[in-house]
Amino acid sequence: MKHHNLPVSPETVHWGYFSKAVQPAITVRSGDRATIETLTHHANDDYERMIQGDPAAEAIFHWTKEQKTISRRGSGPTEGPFKLGAGEGIGVHLMTGPVAVEGAEPGDVLEVRILDVRPRPSQSACYCGRCFGSNAAASWGFHYHDLIEEPKPREVVTIFELDTAGEPYAKAVYNYVWTPQTDPDGIIHSTIDYPGVRVDHNLVTKRENILQDIRVPARLHFGTMGLAPSEEDFVSSIPPSYSGGNIDDWRIGRGARMYYPVAVDGAYFSVGDPHAAQGDSELGGTAIETSLTGDFEFILHKKNDLGGTVLEGLDHPMLETDEQWSVYGFTYPNYLEALGKDAQTTIAHHSSVDKAMRDAFRKMRRFLMTAHNMSEDEAIALMSVAADFGVTQVVDANWGVHGSIRKNIFKCY
Amino acid sequence: MKHHNLPVSPETVHWGYFSKAVQPAITVRSGDRATIETLTHHANDDYERMIQGDPAAEAIFHWTKEQKTISRRGSGPTEGPFKLGAGEGIGVHLMTGPVAVEGAEPGDVLEVRILDVRPRPSQSACYCGRCFGSNAAASWGFHYHDLIEEPKPREVVTIFELDTAGEPYAKAVYNYVWTPQTDPDGIIHSTIDYPGVRVDHNLVTKRENILQDIRVPARLHFGTMGLAPSEEDFVSSIPPSYSGGNIDDWRIGRGARMYYPVAVDGAYFSVGDPHAAQGDSELGGTAIETSLTGDFEFILHKKNDLGGTVLEGLDHPMLETDEQWSVYGFTYPNYLEALGKDAQTTIAHHSSVDKAMRDAFRKMRRFLMTAHNMSEDEAIALMSVAADFGVTQVVDANWGVHGSIRKNIFKCY
Repeated sequence: MKHHNLPVSPETVHWGYFSKAVQPAITVRSGDRATIETLTHHANDDYERMIQGDPAAEAIFHWTKEQKTISRRGSGPTEGPFKLGAGEGIGVHLMTGPVAVEGAEPGDVLEVRILDVRPRPSQSACYCGRCFGSNAAASWGFHYHDLIEEPKPREVVTIFELDTAGEPYAKAVYNYVWTPQTDPDGIIHSTIDYPGVRVDHNLVTKRENILQDIRVPARLHFGTMGLAPSEEDFVSSIPPSYSGGNIDDWRIGRGARMYYPVAVDGAYFSVGDPHAAQGDSELGGTAIETSLTGDFEFILHKKNDLGGTVLEGLDHPMLETDEQWSVYGFTYPNYLEALGKDAQTTIAHHSSVDKAMRDAFRKMRRFLMTAHNMSEDEAIALMSVAADFGVTQVVDANWGVHGSIRKNIFKCY
Repeated sequence: MKHHNLPVSPETVHWGYFSKAVQPAITVRSGDRATIETLTHHANDDYERMIQGDPAAEAIFHWTKEQKTISRRGSGPTEGPFKLGAGEGIGVHLMTGPVAVEGAEPGDVLEVRILDVRPRPSQSACYCGRCFGSNAAASWGFHYHDLIEEPKPREVVTIFELDTAGEPYAKAVYNYVWTPQTDPDGIIHSTIDYPGVRVDHNLVTKRENILQDIRVPARLHFGTMGLAPSEEDFVSSIPPSYSGGNIDDWRIGRGARMYYPVAVDGAYFSVGDPHAAQGDSELGGTAIETSLTGDFEFILHKKNDLGGTVLEGLDHPMLETDEQWSVYGFTYPNYLEALGKDAQTTIAHHSSVDKAMRDAFRKMRRFLMTAHNMSEDEAIALMSVAADFGVTQVVDANWGVHGSIRKNIFKCY
């Protein structure tokens, strides 16, 4: 077993997409471990607290008229003229990786164990050692066209501080309504439509003393984690799909084991979108987006060894924790295949909790019938009396419902 | 404070509906307590285990060609000719009550605390003292038109036994596929379409050794509990609505406090649909349906006293437990008002998790803004990072999503 180190740097991140075509940052063998840094793509909501003084973050977010370190942000066009910028923000998450896995082939399953998750403290002079995150109630939020207070619509950024002295929790510091921001290339962003645009704090009005006496218990986790799909070379990081991605389940934190179907040779695992806390539904569009570092272990399960195990027939992402199994249902289990050429943009017109619930039901039934040898009637009775279905997210285009079943149900007595 | 006793009897139950027009079984004052028995309407799935030898259950379920103790079952017609039977099974739950609350008026809120919940043991010779329940994977289940094994479609009844020696759990005893059952009036029930039809065990094939090594942890709770709506004299017990009813949340068990808007003078509280265990979604159409007895406390909150409390502006059912608050969203917050004359039957054509999620979001926002004095921006940020939305049920016509927020978030530090 080798322990790898994968810090963030301009060479080890890619922005806004999963890809089978990107040069791997590292290559691991089954059983290897890696410490992997991740940066939140929302760090520029408060540059001073979340980027300044952090050499890697400064380098990655660097964007002037003369130089933009990471030009491509999203799976869209890389040749102008641009509406929003290179990559066109079709995909938004800063991803670390890919991590190639030796010997991984389509049909295999990659198990990723999260051994530990730690916040990345500020290195800024005024905030050194403290941890911050940003929540954006954004245009893609479930609430956006259903606001009651004026002005409507509006996007609101709330900056949180994470207290890690005891049981970690987050507390709001201030918020502001998004105002048009001009990027170094002269494009005006009237809404939050392209990642990494630095918010000019002279152009927003900060409101302090918000969410007073409110402490949000931390749920450190990675919102976006998964493998490169086979369908396209560049796949937006926004919609989750059969090989994982932006699942946005807060249970994908310390102690979690994620299982992903391998779609391309080498698996090409990437991780990003770190979160300090999130509720089931991620209602406003984002979590508390904060930079995190994780310790991971990679275990490759070869396709010929899956028969008779809980991984037999797995064609979707699945979570295992000490307490439960969760399967992830989406509006479309594989939206790239279902929607064809323009899938990455058109999926947003199909978002449906009803369809995600249907998919989660089918995946849980499959799991119980295949991995636990039940008849369909046994599986449905058990689901009805013991499986819990929750709304994972209603903001990632390919909306999600997770179905969970407790492990203690299966103990042999 | 007076402690009332409300056993089940032909005089203290009504079947399949909530009603402001039924004579109250008892009248209580705010602060009073009551021990209330409830019977599962699925007891006749196994008459021998769940009815035989239990005088009250035998009397209530009694139905011969000559005499049907409880004729009306549902809010439908009571004059024949019947397709299914009196009440036409528009509503299915055996309800105990109503409990009238002295001085309750529209605009008030009734708090119902569940102090304790206990199973009702069998009094049958062969099973005396043991506890049983029935799960029906029924025609109204989410799975019904999406089956993969033959014969399709089919309804399946699974009988469970509840072990209460230690930490209570349920274990499957046997199951059978529903076959056409002829009731004493000669009506043939090809599917489970009318409550209280005794299943002739000579007409079904029992399959034993099912769900082996599976233990379902008990979650004793009342699936259907609430107040009479004002819109109609007889309201189907199937769709939950603004004054509660068939919410089917397993959290409504011991220690829970439910808050209901009062819609009619006297409140008219009824409770039934007792469950031994259920998962979030109640996927197949029912829980483990089992007879239970509860100890309840009733507290009337007068409308003029609600301002400045967490109950201010409450126009929907809400749950409080030691850990959290939950609001209940439905496809339609008040389907009777929204859908008009034929609402009780047409609501089934409108079922939608997406709409229920929308309603749950709005109710949680209202709760945070009204009860916790937040701005809309604070409420939406907090929901996104700390509120959890889950699928309550996808089988009760007016489908439900619950939004929950933990109490420890609000502690003043």
